[in-house]
Amino acid sequence: MEVPPPLVLKRPLFVPSKTLMGPGPSNCSQRVLEAMSNPVLGHLHPECLQIMDEVKEGIKYVFQTLNDATMCISGAGHSGMEAALCNLIEDNDVVLMGISGVWGHRAADMARRYGADVRYVEASFGRALTLDEIRFAFDTHKPRVLFVCQGDSSTGILQRHIRELGEMCRQHDCYLVVDVVASLGGTEFLMDEWKVDVAYTGSQKSLGGPAGITPISFSRRALTHIRQRKSKPKVYYFDVLLIGQYWGCYGTPRIYHHTISSTLLYGLREALTHFCAMGLKSVVQRHVECSARLQLGIEELGLEMFVQREADRLPTVNTIKVPFGIDWKKVADYAMRKYNLEISGGLGPTAEHVFRIGLMGENATLEKVDMVLSILHEAIQSIKLRALKTERSKI
Amino acid sequence: MEVPPPLVLKRPLFVPSKTLMGPGPSNCSQRVLEAMSNPVLGHLHPECLQIMDEVKEGIKYVFQTLNDATMCISGAGHSGMEAALCNLIEDNDVVLMGISGVWGHRAADMARRYGADVRYVEASFGRALTLDEIRFAFDTHKPRVLFVCQGDSSTGILQRHIRELGEMCRQHDCYLVVDVVASLGGTEFLMDEWKVDVAYTGSQKSLGGPAGITPISFSRRALTHIRQRKSKPKVYYFDVLLIGQYWGCYGTPRIYHHTISSTLLYGLREALTHFCAMGLKSVVQRHVECSARLQLGIEELGLEMFVQREADRLPTVNTIKVPFGIDWKKVADYAMRKYNLEISGGLGPTAEHVFRIGLMGENATLEKVDMVLSILHEAIQSIKLRALKTERSKI
Repeated sequence: MEVPPPLVLKRPLFVPSKTLMGPGPSNCSQRVLEAMSNPVLGHLHPECLQIMDEVKEGIKYVFQTLNDATMCISGAGHSGMEAALCNLIEDNDVVLMGISGVWGHRAADMARRYGADVRYVEASFGRALTLDEIRFAFDTHKPRVLFVCQGDSSTGILQRHIRELGEMCRQHDCYLVVDVVASLGGTEFLMDEWKVDVAYTGSQKSLGGPAGITPISFSRRALTHIRQRKSKPKVYYFDVLLIGQYWGCYGTPRIYHHTISSTLLYGLREALTHFCAMGLKSVVQRHVECSARLQLGIEELGLEMFVQREADRLPTVNTIKVPFGIDWKKVADYAMRKYNLEISGGLGPTAEHVFRIGLMGENATLEKVDMVLSILHEAIQSIKLRALKTERSKI
Repeated sequence: MEVPPPLVLKRPLFVPSKTLMGPGPSNCSQRVLEAMSNPVLGHLHPECLQIMDEVKEGIKYVFQTLNDATMCISGAGHSGMEAALCNLIEDNDVVLMGISGVWGHRAADMARRYGADVRYVEASFGRALTLDEIRFAFDTHKPRVLFVCQGDSSTGILQRHIRELGEMCRQHDCYLVVDVVASLGGTEFLMDEWKVDVAYTGSQKSLGGPAGITPISFSRRALTHIRQRKSKPKVYYFDVLLIGQYWGCYGTPRIYHHTISSTLLYGLREALTHFCAMGLKSVVQRHVECSARLQLGIEELGLEMFVQREADRLPTVNTIKVPFGIDWKKVADYAMRKYNLEISGGLGPTAEHVFRIGLMGENATLEKVDMVLSILHEAIQSIKLRALKTERSKI
């Protein structure tokens, strides 16, 4: 038996250009895209190591941290979640998951596989966790690790009180993991000041970089804990002591850990360069303003935000209730077909119930907000009209 | 405290163009590089899923397999090694590692973290394992998983007899994992015919794609075994039942598993397109011819190959003994400084002892072979001369 070469690869690659206003990835700028067609570098070439150093400095800035153990995991955002949990958890450690959407459940799945004793504190539908809810669960379960998602992109919920959680964890020998995959750049996050132990973010959201390379940072306290583990972290690929050595985090010689993608490094560096040039505060301000305008527009269209309390709304991924009788999929299809615009549906418990509109990086501009509002309106009207016509034709 | 934006990111990105003739990554063609500046696609957009399907067909061809469970892991080559072991191993499973360089030890480190009872069969320095050696160890240890590296890039050793190992494993309820990271495209590999259970390769070697996306395939038999595990695989990110669902391998609806890098998919698709157009046999033939010419040239230069038996030499990564009294680093530096050419030193047990010359993908041409030979010669002569001058100046 011989497997023949596939005919499908005889067709040339064609990639349409879309406006990505779902929960991510967001669009990369032309500058980021062009950077990725630079020639490949070896993973230990001095020029590559220098770019890694520069990327590291950029990450420290966007995380507002001085942590030495700041680096990237060579994988999707989920690999950041894996690395955070894999390094902190030993068998039977109690891990408390703060749940405000699907990502806490995802983290729970990962943590259980690592041998954790997983407990939950779950917000009621469409709300963030209150500090009291978390505190009560914390006192009940006495976790070794507390996980929260600052911005849950499945529900559009912003989890506040991270500063208070940082303090709480310090007082009780617990490590605080904060998922800022969808929130970073769209809302305030001060890793050091808030005493966060591990944070990781998505490169392909507000940062405007390519997917596949995930910034992560570990506090000195977390690192000390990891160095004192009784057993090795269960995954070599996510072992932060080894990855950090390759990233030159510990002042020791660089040792090969894996072959990093220089291509993705170029893209991320360009994205960080642009981000740093604009300045963190101004980027956050812009995302907040865009979301405010979107929320106003949604109200003017007679639609309703999914997250009830304004203060609990994530500026980067905005969830809007699907109006009664409307099929969200038809709306999304309309926007994509007619305008090459991605508007997304819900995920997990919000599936069928919400639209998700991402305002991130390149797409967090007032012009894009007005565009998406106008297209959303047009799409809903058109679908209502079509439904009406179908109804009439039956009479 | 506030962390300021880093000054290093004010400098524009500069990436030098080099000829990468170390153990990998190899150069990407201009066509592959340009593909990667295409706009980003969402990870569930139909166009993205179609590219994944096409990439899957390309991988089946280069692996010579009809396995449904053929996909990519979103990570470096090492993530393929992780995924292979993570899915097959349960606590206390006996795993036999065939060692012909550092990669067997790396796999052993990973497997132990997954709870395996790791045993070894190690080749003597500079030689491949004989079939008898493996058979003896196999009978002694009765492993659940047998791991071999077809081409160990740290030593330049080609491990033959994979067909016989496939047969042996089938007869004894053992699963055969073959690392073809550095060998695929440079030597024959017939996944189905040889009854290999899991194989994974590097995208950035003979395939000519970008690093960071790792083709992998699981036999139907391996998949059945994985479906019958008593416990979930220890890592969500490497769970082949979930990844395969996202890759549309099982005829079930596509479910989000992680955000794939569309950028790397474009690059890999272009690389596979080119590879398939040339044809597997002709690509392998070219790599073999290039290595033969290199070996001849090495002999003519009065140098010696590290791997003694010709049949044990890997065509893609060629190891050459560093002549007595010569510092390999000076030779490599000379080639890089004067010609932007990467020649590499050894790794692990071969460090200091060998040069490693990669002939892979774009760089597996007779012209490149002649170039690297001529530069190697010039570099060694120049360093000898310099040493002589230093010696004389002391007199």
